[in-house]
Amino acid sequence: MKKNLVFIGAGNVATHLAKALYKNGFSILQVFSRTELSAKTLADEVSANYTTDYNTIIENADIYFYCLTDDALPELISQKALPNGIHIHTAGSVKMDVFEMNRTNYGVLYPLQTFSKNKEIDFSKVPLFIEANNEFSEQVIKDLAMSLSQKVYTVSSDNRQKIHLSAVFACNFTNHLFSIAQELLGEVPFDVLLPLIEETVEKVKTISPRKAQTGPAIRKDNAVINKHLESLSFNSDWQDIYKKLTRDIQKES
Amino acid sequence: MKKNLVFIGAGNVATHLAKALYKNGFSILQVFSRTELSAKTLADEVSANYTTDYNTIIENADIYFYCLTDDALPELISQKALPNGIHIHTAGSVKMDVFEMNRTNYGVLYPLQTFSKNKEIDFSKVPLFIEANNEFSEQVIKDLAMSLSQKVYTVSSDNRQKIHLSAVFACNFTNHLFSIAQELLGEVPFDVLLPLIEETVEKVKTISPRKAQTGPAIRKDNAVINKHLESLSFNSDWQDIYKKLTRDIQKES
Repeated sequence: MKKNLVFIGAGNVATHLAKALYKNGFSILQVFSRTELSAKTLADEVSANYTTDYNTIIENADIYFYCLTDDALPELISQKALPNGIHIHTAGSVKMDVFEMNRTNYGVLYPLQTFSKNKEIDFSKVPLFIEANNEFSEQVIKDLAMSLSQKVYTVSSDNRQKIHLSAVFACNFTNHLFSIAQELLGEVPFDVLLPLIEETVEKVKTISPRKAQTGPAIRKDNAVINKHLESLSFNSDWQDIYKKLTRDIQKES
Repeated sequence: MKKNLVFIGAGNVATHLAKALYKNGFSILQVFSRTELSAKTLADEVSANYTTDYNTIIENADIYFYCLTDDALPELISQKALPNGIHIHTAGSVKMDVFEMNRTNYGVLYPLQTFSKNKEIDFSKVPLFIEANNEFSEQVIKDLAMSLSQKVYTVSSDNRQKIHLSAVFACNFTNHLFSIAQELLGEVPFDVLLPLIEETVEKVKTISPRKAQTGPAIRKDNAVINKHLESLSFNSDWQDIYKKLTRDIQKES
């Protein structure tokens, strides 16, 4: 029989995960968030009840999912012991032990993906990194993960943190470079960059990023580099980012 | 009748461009490169002659393409006046005036794409940014560009440089972030990041990168940021890149 779940947190990760699990036949009993609108919105989408009062959290669910910021997670756990059920957080960089103080069965399910409101994700292709504090928890978490995705890996807290850090570079920082690129384009539409961006990604599917490196830095084309630094003189932060990345590319070559 | 061409330079840009033009029915008369192997390799692929001696360049071709680094370009042009034909460079950040000293008809055709050896490019989707010093040159360059791609734009040297700078952020620096990400993964295969990278690109096709930003920096999740900075203590350059990009993301929010 499918397990029943409680969601603690109602942000992007909670929303995508709860919806995917609900679609796969899990019952979501309750959604908790301090923000009533977030709690209600998610609860409505997955036919659950909701609460903004942590003391009214159901105590006999099979599984509790914690989708919170790394700061909020230990704070919330310490507020109330929940001896029953399996407790799972979804954070990349929080150790599994965060549950040790007052939970019995626990673990982690970290989805390596970027989630935005209003944008569907095909969970079957999302790599899920799991960890558990005992065999019983591991079996339950693995079964649940494998019902969502074809790519389930068991990793330690330390390795999970490395993967998370790596994802910040490959996704969050990459997106910020796109942001800078868009501003530099001025009135030229961002669309002109899309074939280039797509090809940049296409390449690293078959060759390593290091071998795929092109551009003035790796060519040591100082004439271009100096012109670019001059054009960036209106924004010393971007100039600095340009210098640091250029130097780091050249160190590799 | 299709024009006949000379290629000066035999690197990635020259190779992809010459092959695409050859396929479209242009005759490539000659390829020049100081490196004999490069000159011969490209010449063989496009049924051209080759030379490593700049003084033996054919003087009556219709079009001369210069695919060189920004440093080499003015140097080579100054070495020999070529009064006939239309002279076109392909550099993002070199002003069209580089030809002024000893050429009559000239311009620029800048393909906004990253080219690697041994990786085919569909030129029809590559944005081409063109510029010319008179109407005659413009018509010839435009016709040639439109025979290659559906996306041909006329831009000034200043705007072209901005586009090039923007491309360095969106492509070359992005690729380097992938490189750092791969190293951080250690033994975990780079493939696990691909769904995340693809989604990062998918998102900016429909929403602006600024709105698409996710991750610890934009959430101001200092617990994560501090853990990541600590993990990066083995490489102060990466630590610095992490700090700078994080701060810059937070400035935007």
